[in-house]
Amino acid sequence: MADLKEEMKGVKAAVDELILGRLLPASDPVPEVDLLYRMMRDYPSRQAKGMRPFLCVTTCKAVGGSREDALLTAACIELFQHWILIHDDIEDGSELRRGEPALHVKYGVPLALNAGDALHARMWGALSMNGSRLGADRAVRIMQEFSHMVNETTEGQHMELGWIARQRWDLKEPDYFEMCTRKTSWYTVAGPCRLGAIAAGAQEGTLAKLTDFGLKLGVAFQIQDDALNIHGDQKKYGKATCDDILEGKRSLIMLHLMGEAGQGEREKLISIMNKERSAKTPEEVSYVLSLIERHDAVGYARKRAVELMKESLSILGTVQWTGDAEAAALLGQFSRFAVEREW
Amino acid sequence: MADLKEEMKGVKAAVDELILGRLLPASDPVPEVDLLYRMMRDYPSRQAKGMRPFLCVTTCKAVGGSREDALLTAACIELFQHWILIHDDIEDGSELRRGEPALHVKYGVPLALNAGDALHARMWGALSMNGSRLGADRAVRIMQEFSHMVNETTEGQHMELGWIARQRWDLKEPDYFEMCTRKTSWYTVAGPCRLGAIAAGAQEGTLAKLTDFGLKLGVAFQIQDDALNIHGDQKKYGKATCDDILEGKRSLIMLHLMGEAGQGEREKLISIMNKERSAKTPEEVSYVLSLIERHDAVGYARKRAVELMKESLSILGTVQWTGDAEAAALLGQFSRFAVEREW
Repeated sequence: MADLKEEMKGVKAAVDELILGRLLPASDPVPEVDLLYRMMRDYPSRQAKGMRPFLCVTTCKAVGGSREDALLTAACIELFQHWILIHDDIEDGSELRRGEPALHVKYGVPLALNAGDALHARMWGALSMNGSRLGADRAVRIMQEFSHMVNETTEGQHMELGWIARQRWDLKEPDYFEMCTRKTSWYTVAGPCRLGAIAAGAQEGTLAKLTDFGLKLGVAFQIQDDALNIHGDQKKYGKATCDDILEGKRSLIMLHLMGEAGQGEREKLISIMNKERSAKTPEEVSYVLSLIERHDAVGYARKRAVELMKESLSILGTVQWTGDAEAAALLGQFSRFAVEREW
Repeated sequence: MADLKEEMKGVKAAVDELILGRLLPASDPVPEVDLLYRMMRDYPSRQAKGMRPFLCVTTCKAVGGSREDALLTAACIELFQHWILIHDDIEDGSELRRGEPALHVKYGVPLALNAGDALHARMWGALSMNGSRLGADRAVRIMQEFSHMVNETTEGQHMELGWIARQRWDLKEPDYFEMCTRKTSWYTVAGPCRLGAIAAGAQEGTLAKLTDFGLKLGVAFQIQDDALNIHGDQKKYGKATCDDILEGKRSLIMLHLMGEAGQGEREKLISIMNKERSAKTPEEVSYVLSLIERHDAVGYARKRAVELMKESLSILGTVQWTGDAEAAALLGQFSRFAVEREW
């Protein structure tokens, strides 16, 4: 049976070769433009798991396509991840990304913002090249799917940023699920799986099931990410631990805690969480962590993640795969990995 | 003979109707998402000239296509202008856009940055709809051209921002032309004309001439923009006058002045121009303006703009138009407008 991590590594290597070797320009005689190219190649050159390209390629194979049918689209999904992280890091004020300073920390906000736009445009240019292998009609269909995926992501991102800007804490589990489905599930699971399936010419029925599967598993994935942000090993995880507390994120962990905490605790919690990142003291972060511990908020959230993962698995079980059975099995393995991973 | 301003107004109205009526979502039951949609519709709802969509539609007609063949692409060019201005305003720290506060001034940087990304993605989604009228092959060809245009723009933008960040003033006229060709000419003239021509099925020979025409006229257009930023009537112009001085822009006016000024003047000029926007006093801005006046730097730059416009006109005169002769004549009228306009 294929090994999940080896498979992910293999797809990631192929995608990186495509991105760094063919899709992104390497150098330019004008020194400023050359710097832009180096900035565009910065996040793509850092360590990353490559889950999204893996899901795209593997779903394509499970439906009956080849790895090559999906590879360019998979690379574009990875490019999407790169540019949106550059912009995300600016929006959230994050300082660390994949174990190194965020791009705007290295080069300032104006140049980093523009480099994100430059990567974004390259992504669409690359997608338009799908026509030579898949035909223009399917290439256009993939771009429409891609556009929908990006729309959902920007809407989810806006929901989260809007809650923070408006200091909203009157939020319940369904609000988190709505935000998280848009912000994470589409571009992490549902989009990559659907895109791979479309590259292989899948039927609408299969695509609908992949949506249901992906939206649930995506939320489970995000909950595990939130948990790692609290409890994870920073070295494996690559982002600064407790960043979500500093950034005032409305994670399921925090929303659960708000419901469980006593009135005095909740008031103190809200006043800390509403402060600007730089105004939060280490003592305040410790206080938030102690409340999370006392009310076992991470335990609760992880339980919900496992439930969602199991629901996603049972949906996956109903798909009539028309291609590689081993690839289909890998998707099941990935589901479990999404909520058990430590990185 | 068709009236240029009436034609521009007509295309702009059609494009706005498409953007606000069909391409951008109007409302959403989730209040945060609804706010995002309102932000996405903000710049598109402000007054603008609509030169770029006009060039796209008019070139399409001059080559033998219809207005409808180019209208969706023209709307996407306008969407491009909207999202890149949102990001530009953040990068430059501009406070005013089209007579109103910039989007990030109204909503903060994180939400505005994300709204720009959301508009960017919608633009590509809209471009992918070209297939239903023009066929998938031509739709893909248009997207490839579009991607090239955005690439050039982000590279030019990086050059300008990079010069400011690295406090570079060892720049000559060819540096300005290189930056300006990338930053402005592609997306203001060359891209829109070529895209309209491609929508009409133009030959490569015609496209090559439109590139030459557009790259020259685009620089002339930018020089006039720089001049209006110094001398213009703020009410007509829509941006804050002298913003370029505050932002430390390397306009042809400034580069010429650096060459003409005495050593003492130049040193003082550089020390003022290198200051942060908020550190520049009104007296310092007045000093820069007095030097511009003394050395007639605006006069020099406008002379170069007129020369470039004339060169662009003579290239335009060699194009073998295969469509509407009145549309072809309008392109010539537009060239003169680009360097004579007061807005």
